[in-house]
Amino acid sequence: MINLEENINSKPLRIAILGTGMIGEVHRRSALLCGATLVGAMASTPERSVEMARRWHTEPILTPADLTTIAPDVVHVCTPNAMHAEHVEAAITANAHVICEKPLATSISVAQRLTELAHQRQRVATVPYVYRFHPLVREIRSRVTAGEFGRWQLLHGSYLQDWLLSPLATSWRVEAATGGPSRAFADIGSHWCDLMEFVSGERITSLTAATSITVPERPVKSEVSFQKSSDAGQTRKVDTEDAATVIFKTRSGVLGSVLISQVSAGRKNRLWFEFDGERRSAVFDQENPETIWLGGEASAEILQRDPSYGSSEQRRLSTLPAGHSQGYAQCFENFVADTYASIRGEAREGLPTFNDGLRSAHIIDAVIRSARSNTWVDVTASL
Amino acid sequence: MINLEENINSKPLRIAILGTGMIGEVHRRSALLCGATLVGAMASTPERSVEMARRWHTEPILTPADLTTIAPDVVHVCTPNAMHAEHVEAAITANAHVICEKPLATSISVAQRLTELAHQRQRVATVPYVYRFHPLVREIRSRVTAGEFGRWQLLHGSYLQDWLLSPLATSWRVEAATGGPSRAFADIGSHWCDLMEFVSGERITSLTAATSITVPERPVKSEVSFQKSSDAGQTRKVDTEDAATVIFKTRSGVLGSVLISQVSAGRKNRLWFEFDGERRSAVFDQENPETIWLGGEASAEILQRDPSYGSSEQRRLSTLPAGHSQGYAQCFENFVADTYASIRGEAREGLPTFNDGLRSAHIIDAVIRSARSNTWVDVTASL
Amino acid sequence: MINLEENINSKPLRIAILGTGMIGEVHRRSALLCGATLVGAMASTPERSVEMARRWHTEPILTPADLTTIAPDVVHVCTPNAMHAEHVEAAITANAHVICEKPLATSISVAQRLTELAHQRQRVATVPYVYRFHPLVREIRSRVTAGEFGRWQLLHGSYLQDWLLSPLATSWRVEAATGGPSRAFADIGSHWCDLMEFVSGERITSLTAATSITVPERPVKSEVSFQKSSDAGQTRKVDTEDAATVIFKTRSGVLGSVLISQVSAGRKNRLWFEFDGERRSAVFDQENPETIWLGGEASAEILQRDPSYGSSEQRRLSTLPAGHSQGYAQCFENFVADTYASIRGEAREGLPTFNDGLRSAHIIDAVIRSARSNTWVDVTASL
Amino acid sequence: MINLEENINSKPLRIAILGTGMIGEVHRRSALLCGATLVGAMASTPERSVEMARRWHTEPILTPADLTTIAPDVVHVCTPNAMHAEHVEAAITANAHVICEKPLATSISVAQRLTELAHQRQRVATVPYVYRFHPLVREIRSRVTAGEFGRWQLLHGSYLQDWLLSPLATSWRVEAATGGPSRAFADIGSHWCDLMEFVSGERITSLTAATSITVPERPVKSEVSFQKSSDAGQTRKVDTEDAATVIFKTRSGVLGSVLISQVSAGRKNRLWFEFDGERRSAVFDQENPETIWLGGEASAEILQRDPSYGSSEQRRLSTLPAGHSQGYAQCFENFVADTYASIRGEAREGLPTFNDGLRSAHIIDAVIRSARSNTWVDVTASL
Repeated sequence: MINLEENINSKPLRIAILGTGMIGEVHRRSALLCGATLVGAMASTPERSVEMARRWHTEPILTPADLTTIAPDVVHVCTPNAMHAEHVEAAITANAHVICEKPLATSISVAQRLTELAHQRQRVATVPYVYRFHPLVREIRSRVTAGEFGRWQLLHGSYLQDWLLSPLATSWRVEAATGGPSRAFADIGSHWCDLMEFVSGERITSLTAATSITVPERPVKSEVSFQKSSDAGQTRKVDTEDAATVIFKTRSGVLGSVLISQVSAGRKNRLWFEFDGERRSAVFDQENPETIWLGGEASAEILQRDPSYGSSEQRRLSTLPAGHSQGYAQCFENFVADTYASIRGEAREGLPTFNDGLRSAHIIDAVIRSARSNTWVDVTASL
Repeated sequence: MINLEENINSKPLRIAILGTGMIGEVHRRSALLCGATLVGAMASTPERSVEMARRWHTEPILTPADLTTIAPDVVHVCTPNAMHAEHVEAAITANAHVICEKPLATSISVAQRLTELAHQRQRVATVPYVYRFHPLVREIRSRVTAGEFGRWQLLHGSYLQDWLLSPLATSWRVEAATGGPSRAFADIGSHWCDLMEFVSGERITSLTAATSITVPERPVKSEVSFQKSSDAGQTRKVDTEDAATVIFKTRSGVLGSVLISQVSAGRKNRLWFEFDGERRSAVFDQENPETIWLGGEASAEILQRDPSYGSSEQRRLSTLPAGHSQGYAQCFENFVADTYASIRGEAREGLPTFNDGLRSAHIIDAVIRSARSNTWVDVTASL
Repeated sequence: MINLEENINSKPLRIAILGTGMIGEVHRRSALLCGATLVGAMASTPERSVEMARRWHTEPILTPADLTTIAPDVVHVCTPNAMHAEHVEAAITANAHVICEKPLATSISVAQRLTELAHQRQRVATVPYVYRFHPLVREIRSRVTAGEFGRWQLLHGSYLQDWLLSPLATSWRVEAATGGPSRAFADIGSHWCDLMEFVSGERITSLTAATSITVPERPVKSEVSFQKSSDAGQTRKVDTEDAATVIFKTRSGVLGSVLISQVSAGRKNRLWFEFDGERRSAVFDQENPETIWLGGEASAEILQRDPSYGSSEQRRLSTLPAGHSQGYAQCFENFVADTYASIRGEAREGLPTFNDGLRSAHIIDAVIRSARSNTWVDVTASL
Repeated sequence: MINLEENINSKPLRIAILGTGMIGEVHRRSALLCGATLVGAMASTPERSVEMARRWHTEPILTPADLTTIAPDVVHVCTPNAMHAEHVEAAITANAHVICEKPLATSISVAQRLTELAHQRQRVATVPYVYRFHPLVREIRSRVTAGEFGRWQLLHGSYLQDWLLSPLATSWRVEAATGGPSRAFADIGSHWCDLMEFVSGERITSLTAATSITVPERPVKSEVSFQKSSDAGQTRKVDTEDAATVIFKTRSGVLGSVLISQVSAGRKNRLWFEFDGERRSAVFDQENPETIWLGGEASAEILQRDPSYGSSEQRRLSTLPAGHSQGYAQCFENFVADTYASIRGEAREGLPTFNDGLRSAHIIDAVIRSARSNTWVDVTASL
């Protein structure tokens, strides 16, 4: 069982959080549980920074440049996608380690620049592909490594949400200018691809994709993600996809497919995958992360998360007894704990770094190119 | 509730069955329940025809030409795909109505010829896309027609089996010469597409597909579908796909995708679809056909098959009280009952005819063309 | 795989059906599929007998005494419970074998008389505890016999319906005069207890029970089971239980409990059991009979019905390939097929006979006695 | 959405934790997230107290009497059941508010004494019946209050675990001397009854119960709950029940039943209930707390936890967006947050207090009396 503050002799890490929305709060709670001290917070405006700092019992950060003065050990970048580059650079300039929300950047070139910067300055730099921290995801991965599934036959799945089904729903994510040229795929498809490559050990080398804008107009402005305004008011033409479908082939020639949607009524956050091997299949559903289905020709096996059984990583990430359901919060806490441990110089398996953020930028770029050209395209190579 | 022998004043239909394998037996039982009299059966060889006829308490049919003498009212064609054309033509020549197993033919041109023949001779000619006869499939369709789902956002699903996962498994279906150039898609993908178009009201107009042969060599011969030999013996190179993925667009511009596999461990016959509308989503799983999931933003609804509730077609096809589970057998019985009723001149909704078999041939052809060319292709128009 | 007309050399059995309601129709279809010839049918009145005989293409039976003249090989007794005795006696007097609907009788003494009569006249006499014929029920039973579960820790479950939740719903089953002094428990609780004893190998020796009438008044009359009138009209005080709970102990000292209800909204025919052994647990849900859950401390196993795997009885009763869902109809067909095979002198495992019907009468009697006295009571011994 | 540190102007609460096992750690994390300052911890021995204090970055508490000196605002009592009385009294004597693990006491008289003491000293005194804090439990409760279910027909369920199935498993809970005369029922059955009464609004007035010891001998000693030793070593006769079944009647005459087990293989922490009303039924499964099933005659509804929909309490306790699964940790955090808010003088709905702990003692006592006498007994009245 993971101990969030593992090294009891080390002094607490001093952290700053840039971006105080829903996801910033998730970072803050995890940091708190991991024994960190919050030394500053920056929101969308100086006024809001002051208010949020008061609410979070910390100091306001008025501009990213202040980081140099504050000199935190770690900066959590939780701002809109298009600002990641500036904020990550400010953090590393201040010699801080960085956790940057995904997607790391809205283009390959920027993602590459940030990755190289972190590498040069020898900073721990991670991206919260937090679904890697579901204990049973690790269980499948450990069994893949052990050869339990055999050669892959097919890798498939979907990631479905419905928070943008309503024509009244919007967010900064919807506009290419703030969210980047891909929305549904970059936001959640990137999670699926990261998880697929992490668990299966395969790498997507080529793909063909199609995208769809099913809600052509949306309200001009919305401050908060995952919320709907009650009145549309002024609208603008949507320039990012609501749904995407991708067929891919991997380095070793395996066929796969994934479907991404933010307009599937009744689906809240349903990342789902099925990996079919020559001996068994594995199914994981992020909305029901406490069990996995392992299919075989004669019967299927249902594994329930349990610190008393299974692989070492499954046990390590199980912070509660079986049947006392863990979920998203524990993924995040374990991700932050492992990032902090890595900062303290301890080795951790499966930590998603800027390299993984860059990898993702390459896949997103390929999806955009394919959807525009209606052809198969190669995924360009990462570092 | 459907009464299988609805017109109690009519005299029993005289039927013949060509092909006495697993699916032939399913036809025979349904015919029996529908009050038909079996007047002849033909197996793979004259000797086997004699044996099967004795077992089925009927007369052997030694060659299709004998049908003219026997003059049955209906011929059930249950032979391997490549023989459908010859057997259907013999049946219609004998002036019989025909039920022909799917795929109707292994090419568009032959499918078209058979469809035209049936039309010219004014024969009732149906193809057992039997999943149309799950009562809850009709329930969704009826709600689609009533506008309950609104404009489609996304149409997706899969059809997964595992009976060809073992390299020792094979069947006449595996060889292009007997089964046709497409296997997994033609055999089961065709079911999915028929069901999707039947329920959603959409038509696939273009698609891009990729296929995969995951088991490169299989035993030379196997008599019986759904069975595995214990020893591989002599093998041959497989020339039909084990898996296929398809991205499609419909006439009204809706994006969709489907995944087909006969090599997914633990999946026996899992036809699954999710149709996402602007107001609700609908999910159907053929292996659990007694309930459907209707998703909405605020909550989901689970409908259980019930002759006391729901659409008229759902009620009509419910032959057992709720909770007394129906399944594949009742689909088949209802399909045969409706075909026979149509022969008796009664109108029936949703009967899959040779037109639907021809439609399927066009889609299969497009999948083959796209998979070979790695491009988007148009689905050619049916009659 | 069972062949319903197994002995292909025997001549068809001649059968008569007494009672032509919903369940009579289920008997008729099964008999038809098993190759029997229907020689007569009797409904609630002579007029209705004539009409039903015409609809079923057979002859009307005007009184039970006519059976002597008709001399059928088998009589299916599908009439209301209180008439079973008279009709079974008429059938056996006519030297017929008998299938009598459950409960066999509304008292121990009558059940015992009928059981002895069948025994004396050496007639095959069965009672449709058809859930024994779910293939996966046999799978569990076979594993119990093989010692896979170890000593039982706890035997529990429920049987829930909702067709009598509405105060407008009624049936001949509701009135003690026609249905017997116990309703919910005698009608469906008896199924659960039969299945529990059949599968687990345990025998209930003592119990304490409580019953409840939750709908105190119901309409005076309803012809058809499982239907609701739209208007209450004249009502009468209900004198049979809507729900029952039972705690029991078995011969070997195992504790168990079962809950029975016909007033649980949303539950249609949910017979459910969990048998917890010292090594594994087994769960079966009659509404989802194609899979079972076998729980273990480290993981659970899901078995799907499959003629290619599992115990010989599971395979024998699997009449369709895996994933082509079987259900209630196949249970009934297999029950009738096995009864007929037994009549032809062939041995069949697990056939529920009048002995089992008598056993059930003893348990029902104990439940009634306990619920009236609010004490633990012993189950009296069967033959 | 609940803000765990709601009153941002108040100074942090100073808390002490007595008992540093698995559940003590759960308390500590919740307290941390709620903004409290941990000022002391006491473990099973002074040496262990020193070690745990170091690990938890706090001071050791060597005897309960030290609380008077430390003067914490709140004491969390997480010690074995038999020590609750002494530790609660020490806490209240030190003028602290108290959170005491359940069962509050191992007898009615002690529970009553502690309840009265807290009342006299006007201390906030709560018991972690934390399942009350699952957002969807509140959703059902709110709909009960609104009359959505109508008059209850039947209240039933179970609470199944398997951590004591192995004859090698044990705990201080197993011995009556440390855990109290009832084990399975007092430990987990009490949770079920609390939840049933909390949600349904009913009160159990009489019951009949049976208990069973299925593992007659267990190892003499085990330090840690939920763990198994690899070797039995010396064993002793078990004097507390492994399983219990209860039939009950409520004040308004509703029939119900519940089954409790710690020896059901594959069940980890499966608290499950179904409450059947005259209009709808409600099902909750603690291991899958993110959805509930609301059954109706025509269809069922599945509600997913969602801060955007449903009752105010469901929304308030939803700390994460829909599909980002919450679980046990959030229940605990919300319980602690509400206790602390209550200490700060804010009103909170549904907080489980010592009154509820006392209520539970009365029910446990009735179960023990009934199981010993094999009769129906009345539940004695609480304060």
